[in-house]
Amino acid sequence: MSNPPSMQEVIRRLHEYWAAHGCLIWQPYSEKVGAGTMNPATVLRVLGPEPWKVAYVEPSFRADDGRYAENPNRMQMHHQYQVILKPDPGNPQELYLGSLEAIGLDRAKHDIRFVEDNWKSPALGAWGLGWEVWLDGQEITQYTYFQQAGSLPLDPVSVEITYGLDRIVMYLQNKKQVWDIDVDGVHTFAEVYRDPEIENCTYNFEVADVDRLKQLYAIYQAEADACIKRGLVIPAHDYVLRQSQTFNLLDARGAIGVTERAKFFAGMRAQARAVSELYVKQRERAEFPWLPDNGTLETGNGKQDIRPTTPTPYSLLPTSFLLEIGSEELPSADVVSGIEQVQTTVTKLLAEQRLTYGSLRVTGTPRRLVVYVTELAPRQADELIEKRGPTLDRAYDSLGQPTKAAEGFAKGQGVDVNALETRDNYVYAVKRVAGRATAEILPDLCRTLLESLRFEMTMRWNSSNIAFSRPVRWLVALYGDQVVPFTWAGVSSGKVSRGPRFADAVAGLPPGEFTTFTIDQADSYFDAVAQQGVMIDRAQRQQRIAELVKAAAASVNGQTTEEPELLDEVTDLVEAPQALLGSFEEKYLELPTPVLIGVMKKHQRYFPVFRNGKMLPNFVTVANANQLAYPEVVVAGNEGVIRARYADANFFYRQDTTRLLESYTPRLSTLTFHEKLGSMLDKVARLKVLAPHVAEMLQADAAQLAAVQRAAALAKSDLVTSMVVEMTSLQGIMGETYALKSGESSAVAQAIREHYLPRSAGDANPASLPGLALSLADKLDSLAGLFAVGAIPTGSADPFGLRRAALGVVNNLLASGTDFSIKAGLAAAAAEQPVPVSAEALAETTAFVERRLQGVLSDLGYAHDVVEAVLAVRGDNPAAAQRAALALSEMVRRPGWNDAFTAYARCARITRNLAEQLPLNPAAYAESVEQHLHDAFEHAAAAIAGSTEPATALGAQLQALQTPINAYFDKVLVNAEDEQVRQARQALVQRVAALPAAVADLSKLQGF
Amino acid sequence: MSNPPSMQEVIRRLHEYWAAHGCLIWQPYSEKVGAGTMNPATVLRVLGPEPWKVAYVEPSFRADDGRYAENPNRMQMHHQYQVILKPDPGNPQELYLGSLEAIGLDRAKHDIRFVEDNWKSPALGAWGLGWEVWLDGQEITQYTYFQQAGSLPLDPVSVEITYGLDRIVMYLQNKKQVWDIDVDGVHTFAEVYRDPEIENCTYNFEVADVDRLKQLYAIYQAEADACIKRGLVIPAHDYVLRQSQTFNLLDARGAIGVTERAKFFAGMRAQARAVSELYVKQRERAEFPWLPDNGTLETGNGKQDIRPTTPTPYSLLPTSFLLEIGSEELPSADVVSGIEQVQTTVTKLLAEQRLTYGSLRVTGTPRRLVVYVTELAPRQADELIEKRGPTLDRAYDSLGQPTKAAEGFAKGQGVDVNALETRDNYVYAVKRVAGRATAEILPDLCRTLLESLRFEMTMRWNSSNIAFSRPVRWLVALYGDQVVPFTWAGVSSGKVSRGPRFADAVAGLPPGEFTTFTIDQADSYFDAVAQQGVMIDRAQRQQRIAELVKAAAASVNGQTTEEPELLDEVTDLVEAPQALLGSFEEKYLELPTPVLIGVMKKHQRYFPVFRNGKMLPNFVTVANANQLAYPEVVVAGNEGVIRARYADANFFYRQDTTRLLESYTPRLSTLTFHEKLGSMLDKVARLKVLAPHVAEMLQADAAQLAAVQRAAALAKSDLVTSMVVEMTSLQGIMGETYALKSGESSAVAQAIREHYLPRSAGDANPASLPGLALSLADKLDSLAGLFAVGAIPTGSADPFGLRRAALGVVNNLLASGTDFSIKAGLAAAAAEQPVPVSAEALAETTAFVERRLQGVLSDLGYAHDVVEAVLAVRGDNPAAAQRAALALSEMVRRPGWNDAFTAYARCARITRNLAEQLPLNPAAYAESVEQHLHDAFEHAAAAIAGSTEPATALGAQLQALQTPINAYFDKVLVNAEDEQVRQARQALVQRVAALPAAVADLSKLQGF
Repeated sequence: MSNPPSMQEVIRRLHEYWAAHGCLIWQPYSEKVGAGTMNPATVLRVLGPEPWKVAYVEPSFRADDGRYAENPNRMQMHHQYQVILKPDPGNPQELYLGSLEAIGLDRAKHDIRFVEDNWKSPALGAWGLGWEVWLDGQEITQYTYFQQAGSLPLDPVSVEITYGLDRIVMYLQNKKQVWDIDVDGVHTFAEVYRDPEIENCTYNFEVADVDRLKQLYAIYQAEADACIKRGLVIPAHDYVLRQSQTFNLLDARGAIGVTERAKFFAGMRAQARAVSELYVKQRERAEFPWLPDNGTLETGNGKQDIRPTTPTPYSLLPTSFLLEIGSEELPSADVVSGIEQVQTTVTKLLAEQRLTYGSLRVTGTPRRLVVYVTELAPRQADELIEKRGPTLDRAYDSLGQPTKAAEGFAKGQGVDVNALETRDNYVYAVKRVAGRATAEILPDLCRTLLESLRFEMTMRWNSSNIAFSRPVRWLVALYGDQVVPFTWAGVSSGKVSRGPRFADAVAGLPPGEFTTFTIDQADSYFDAVAQQGVMIDRAQRQQRIAELVKAAAASVNGQTTEEPELLDEVTDLVEAPQALLGSFEEKYLELPTPVLIGVMKKHQRYFPVFRNGKMLPNFVTVANANQLAYPEVVVAGNEGVIRARYADANFFYRQDTTRLLESYTPRLSTLTFHEKLGSMLDKVARLKVLAPHVAEMLQADAAQLAAVQRAAALAKSDLVTSMVVEMTSLQGIMGETYALKSGESSAVAQAIREHYLPRSAGDANPASLPGLALSLADKLDSLAGLFAVGAIPTGSADPFGLRRAALGVVNNLLASGTDFSIKAGLAAAAAEQPVPVSAEALAETTAFVERRLQGVLSDLGYAHDVVEAVLAVRGDNPAAAQRAALALSEMVRRPGWNDAFTAYARCARITRNLAEQLPLNPAAYAESVEQHLHDAFEHAAAAIAGSTEPATALGAQLQALQTPINAYFDKVLVNAEDEQVRQARQALVQRVAALPAAVADLSKLQGF
Repeated sequence: MSNPPSMQEVIRRLHEYWAAHGCLIWQPYSEKVGAGTMNPATVLRVLGPEPWKVAYVEPSFRADDGRYAENPNRMQMHHQYQVILKPDPGNPQELYLGSLEAIGLDRAKHDIRFVEDNWKSPALGAWGLGWEVWLDGQEITQYTYFQQAGSLPLDPVSVEITYGLDRIVMYLQNKKQVWDIDVDGVHTFAEVYRDPEIENCTYNFEVADVDRLKQLYAIYQAEADACIKRGLVIPAHDYVLRQSQTFNLLDARGAIGVTERAKFFAGMRAQARAVSELYVKQRERAEFPWLPDNGTLETGNGKQDIRPTTPTPYSLLPTSFLLEIGSEELPSADVVSGIEQVQTTVTKLLAEQRLTYGSLRVTGTPRRLVVYVTELAPRQADELIEKRGPTLDRAYDSLGQPTKAAEGFAKGQGVDVNALETRDNYVYAVKRVAGRATAEILPDLCRTLLESLRFEMTMRWNSSNIAFSRPVRWLVALYGDQVVPFTWAGVSSGKVSRGPRFADAVAGLPPGEFTTFTIDQADSYFDAVAQQGVMIDRAQRQQRIAELVKAAAASVNGQTTEEPELLDEVTDLVEAPQALLGSFEEKYLELPTPVLIGVMKKHQRYFPVFRNGKMLPNFVTVANANQLAYPEVVVAGNEGVIRARYADANFFYRQDTTRLLESYTPRLSTLTFHEKLGSMLDKVARLKVLAPHVAEMLQADAAQLAAVQRAAALAKSDLVTSMVVEMTSLQGIMGETYALKSGESSAVAQAIREHYLPRSAGDANPASLPGLALSLADKLDSLAGLFAVGAIPTGSADPFGLRRAALGVVNNLLASGTDFSIKAGLAAAAAEQPVPVSAEALAETTAFVERRLQGVLSDLGYAHDVVEAVLAVRGDNPAAAQRAALALSEMVRRPGWNDAFTAYARCARITRNLAEQLPLNPAAYAESVEQHLHDAFEHAAAAIAGSTEPATALGAQLQALQTPINAYFDKVLVNAEDEQVRQARQALVQRVAALPAAVADLSKLQGF
């Protein structure tokens, strides 16, 4: 637009647009709220069965987001524009997109994406599924299908659209920061909002009195209780809001520990629930006056004109089948999971239905899950159905004639009595049921398929109350050129699909509408959807993205690193990719690289760009488009976003580095580790004792010991720095950076970072001994303490991440190859706990870690029996166990091993019941084979003992013993009558059997 | 309109209208506020020199106004629409009226009036002058020229327009109550606002916990202080608002006494001031960025195209002069005062200027003050100026020739030395100065006149910073057909006047414009203004209103009572009157009549209608119109207003009468009478002792005593009833009503009402003895107590109304004619005070009351000397004093009185220095005249003593003594040589002189 609208003009247009679409225009609330959601017009009106459509501006206050007006678009007060549509009108996304056009945003110029973002408010007992809507990478709207509020399930579901008004206006006006926004044609945003912003930040972060705020909170809570007791919805709600706002202030002042937080939330949630229940009761008493006369709400499905066609003539030849499940944007993980599930389920269903086919292809995009079956048989294979009847003696009389019983059975089964077959003393009715026509079966098959799909989180959206990942909006189902008619979740199948968003964007449609295209027959689907610019094949799309990103980086002589997870996610954020190269101010390269990368990947799904391992001031983003008309607009938008993000990171970084890292330590007392185990500061106190102890067990030298000690003291301090509070994933990373900035040694800094390793499967392990020691100590402390207080992981819940901790212990030890006694380590950790740690608990913990070791070794490919054999001896020492496993695995693969093992086993078996070790007594040997075996044993024992790792020598030595053993057993009877002779023989054989004792229990091996 | 706009459509149109007129569209505030004024967009932005135009909706919360949704238009939450125009654009009223048209209100159909209403917020240290805008009797807007905020004077002044949005919409939609408003085309006002309204009322009045609220208040105050200390404007302001809202809740709970209230206000005011100062400093530091580059603001004067004409040729003949001072609506009292002042000042100025004229006519309407002078001389009368020079002997030498001194003097005075005149031993220079042309003088004269006008309250509105009652918008000044050119308060005189509002209303003008008409010459003014439909003559307008009201009442066979004050006020609320008869529901006639009348007159300026002394369910209102197009619309509107008012009164009445009157008494402890004298409950405790004592002094019988005692206990209880809290003027009246309802005797009830009498000059006095006793006791208690604690009235301040109390004591005693000793009464009152009352204080109090008695008697027409004579003897007993004054006045008018008085005076003078009274000693008489006088004296003394009122007998007796006295002095020498003889003579004369002793001190009479 040549003349972009002022902010107040944008509001006016939104009001006009939504009023025209049936919304009541409401006012901002008379309390400070964190979001428009807390306005009763949302949080209460979404409850109960009545319809409600509303739109309003809401100045929203979030203390934590305050940046003293130094960030381009992050403020403690921002303006939301809130819309509630209850029930779902069927085309809420399209209505929303239409509103963007209404305020002058030309969608054809921009990259608009719906990126999964689920919302929940623990304090309000509310949650919903939906997206962030991204405009050129900037989050401009939070879009949610409200599933629960005030701890009550919502029926009908409400669509909640929350525009980030300031950001949208910033974009419309092509400003680099909100402060430059033209508010009314006269004043800038800065002119009217900057002073209050700075003042509120100062108040929130520096002036607000914690004690007084706590008193306020208590009073608000008491008044809310009084109001609830009296049944007063709004007054009670106001006091809950005041609690919430006071809580946010306390939080911004850093005055709330973890346990306290939970208590606050529980209190607010209980009151919010009570308020919600009161509201619903109030409406119920009024007999839900806004319900239509018939008591049910119409939930629409947009301009869905897809109707089932009339029953089709059955196809006679194998024909292709195509199902497209059209939905609002699925979360990327659900696209992957959806494709997998569809593949498995369709395969299974077709088999169950005895339907043969040529090939099965399943793929998808964020808005389509597609099944394509070629040469699908026109009918099921015929089926023989056999039913057992009476016994022969009851079915036939002495004359061999069918009895009444046989006749009755035959009649009941609808076969001729003479056609009964006899077998195994029974008669059988056997029917050949002709296969049904595929066209008849497919509707149910489609429904069954859809019913079967499960996702991590699901939502309801219309009166069908069906749950799915996101609303299903259309279904294309074709068998050949015939529609497979069925209805699911209120949507009827047809042959009309919808175009991609980027096609809608350029189509110039009226609000609420979308582009469509018709698929004439199943086989033309892929051409038709390609025609729309959609790259339907997921693998191909992924490949293409990788190429595009690489090419974009190459345009500045850069490279991108492998980012498989990011690539995976981006693949399912677009229906067609277009990579764009953007840049940012070089000055931000001074920020720690992990911060730069973290921000790009976590928040923006950008690919970072490097040259010779050094980051460039560039990034690659992937737009949902086949050909952007104005790529420079989209690039500029994305650059604005990263600018704001980096400005934010810079703000934190500067703030954090005004103080030494150690000065943050005392604040750890506000972070609860576990109610019974104290705060994070308490944990640090334990680590300061335990970590050096562990280091000693790892044979640390004096310098390493000193580093461990210092690192332990600082290990958790970064948790209370702004950067880590904002981006938890940077814990340890910022610790290292800040430690170096604070003048700590590189060893200390490294240990701080490394002690969190590995953060996930496949992550790196500590490279330094101090890092290893601290990492082990941290995890052992958690394991010993939490098991002792009963916080033991269950099948479904592991809130403290103990599985990960145990795995970390194991993997770190495996990676370093260092010997370490888990049991001793846990005992040392137990000794520092503020609670008694029982022997049982300790044993249970040790076993828990050993089970992880077992799993890891199995995952590494060691045979089950090898692992068992090794663990029986070296389960307490992961590195040793792995060495043994390796050796044993090689051993059992040695040529001729089986014979050698058989020989060894004779020794082991014959002596395994001996209670004690008998003394060798060569003087009592009667046969030469005895002395031969004795000599061979002594040679083997010396060889094993002389090896740095007994395990590696074992195999050869046991093989060397095969001949002497066999010769021995051929000649002598071990259990001789003469006691002295017997004992001498037993002693020798016993020694041979014990040769692997330090390595493994070979009796666990297969073939023993 | 056939299809009235929904409420949200009205808001949309207002936004559109004011945005088009340069306003920033702002959001409601994120705190609960009592009015849009408290939004920082008003209360802070009006400070300092920068321009600011803003418009916004403000849901406004006033706990006290809650009626549980039972009132048609009064709620604890109502919507304001707030507009701030800074500086005054010159035509703000017209812009405002244009906005009414914009929202679909056809002004031609309605009666719109600007009724004086000044606004102040003691808590915020803010005030302004302006009006309520009435639409058919309903207050729809508060319109204020903001003069001060945060205790800081405002320069420039802001125009604040506060629409009562709900009421306006109710009118537009022709609804009888706000609850029926169509909010958005779907929902009614009741549907979205009724439940919250009822709940908030319940919370505010019943649930809110006083202790907790007080804690909240203290915390808010402390946080505000912390913010102020840190210089944080908005955070501090928020906490002041929270205090204010908490205060309102406490007040609604009845938890705030008078002293406490003052303390709360002082605290908030101090903080509001600090916040304001911080804001101004903040803007100053930023160098007032919104100021235009030249640093000064343009203040407009609408489309004022009146320009001074070129200098006029002098008129040669006596010609008429006309000055019309055109302004926004003056308060009615200022119209009266303005007319009086103009009359006096113009008379004085013309005399000073030696301008002769035919007649002077001064009159006016709310928008015009008019001076019309006929036959104003074209020039001043010539003037002789005489200057005295040197003495003759210094002016002329011995030859009679002028000296150097004479020549120098003559030269200095500009006369020929030979023209010097001689007189009284001096020379004189005499000059005749020709009178200046009137046309030259008139501009200054007009300016001087305008400068001289003084009003009770004045305001500034533009950069001239001139103060006037309301903004002056145009000036018509004509001498004959020539404009008298001058500029005042930014307005230049001309010959163009403005039409009345009702002409503008039908003219269909663009927003901000107004009708005008041109006056060709001074003499055509009255015709021209009459042509506009304006009834310019105030007396005529008043007369016309009286007739119209009478006629309207007669149309329902009713009469109106004399309501001179109301008539006076209504006269200056209109430029042309049209009386309309309205009606209300008969059921409201069950409310006490004083309530009905009070509401009508106080709030609505309606005339009540009676038939045979009984009220009819009718009223008469007077519209500002010469011929309403749709009188039924205006009537309906006014009926809706009175309906809401009576519903409100009914609400209070029902609420109050759920309990006995005596049950309210304990709550009086929350009303502070005076810090040192305790609460109202303490006062009642004193009255329970004092009032019976006073009654005894008034010779009450047992029944009367009992009534006084009971009435004293209940005298103040109605002060805490809802009705009296709402309408203070009903104190006592409701007490009587509620006492009767509570089963008290009529004597008790009557005494309760009567104890407030007289409420003002000319008001009734108590008719019953219990009423009189209680009334005296109440006032004596106040006088004795407040004088004792030093709360003594000064020339300008009498916060406790002690002058009125003293006057009340005097007038009540005069009216009842009962003897009563003020001194004894005050002593009895003093005995009950909680503080010591010194003898000096008591004497001062007594003297204070006596001075009122002196004033009252003088006002009654008694001669000064008579009053003095009487007060010297009977000043302590008003009734007796009046009797004496009456008698003395008659006495001095008796034929021959002077001779009799001369005779009496001889007696009085000759004995007045005697220290003691001498015994009569007839035995020592030497002459017969002595015995004659003795006999005459004894006769007179007996006659005086035998009279019920000695005063009435005095005159005749003194006249009867004239002859014996004169004969006596002719014959005898009083101061005889012989001591016995002398003393006998002195004794006799002394007795004669003492005859008036119980009546008056006749030595004070003229002629003594």
